[in-house]
Amino acid sequence: MSDSALSLIDSLKFENGLIPAIVQDEKTGDVLMFAFMNKEALKLTLETKIAHYWSRSRKSLWKKGETSGHYQYVKEVLVDCDEDAVLLLVEQVGGACHTGYQSCFYRKIDGKVIGQKVFDAEDVY
Amino acid sequence: MSDSALSLIDSLKFENGLIPAIVQDEKTGDVLMFAFMNKEALKLTLETKIAHYWSRSRKSLWKKGETSGHYQYVKEVLVDCDEDAVLLLVEQVGGACHTGYQSCFYRKIDGKVIGQKVFDAEDVY
Repeated sequence: MSDSALSLIDSLKFENGLIPAIVQDEKTGDVLMFAFMNKEALKLTLETKIAHYWSRSRKSLWKKGETSGHYQYVKEVLVDCDEDAVLLLVEQVGGACHTGYQSCFYRKIDGKVIGQKVFDAEDVY
Repeated sequence: MSDSALSLIDSLKFENGLIPAIVQDEKTGDVLMFAFMNKEALKLTLETKIAHYWSRSRKSLWKKGETSGHYQYVKEVLVDCDEDAVLLLVEQVGGACHTGYQSCFYRKIDGKVIGQKVFDAEDVY
């Protein structure tokens, strides 16, 4: 990790220790999921190039794919104008969503399913 | 707005009255910005098909483009698996970012600018 990357991490605005992270498939452009990172998760992500998050429900660091094998290999991390959100461009192994869909955003607001199932959640978790 | 859309709004999880909203360019797939909506902003967005948000800094409803003319015409609203985040697919007039860039995510975490300026912020605001 370069010094410049370290210094931009230090300028990021973590709110109650967390920053929103949007995850996008590097190849298809599909938005895969939305999660939160704490500073440690972001540093681990940059160091290992595998996405780490903070699970607010489990109150613990979360290496995405640790149970499922569905790791996210991080190709790029972008920062927004206000420095209070990050965008991860990733290569997604398997599917991003724990329900078996490729993306967590698999439904329209009217409930219609538009996403594709890429694995059987019962086989994985 | 259909009844089914209304009912899915009611199942969304607003945290302290707000839900994260990711905004993606419908055509290019670029992630343009990240903001928050309260229930009123989401209802107005669905009714008018123009994106509305809640400005946490100004503590007010915010019709994106009201000052700049850079409206976001909303083509689709998607909901994530946990029903605690939304994804807007939009047609963006001008640029999404108040700095003049097309997307708010115009920099890598090492500070390198990768986005494109599409307007002069001083002319608009």
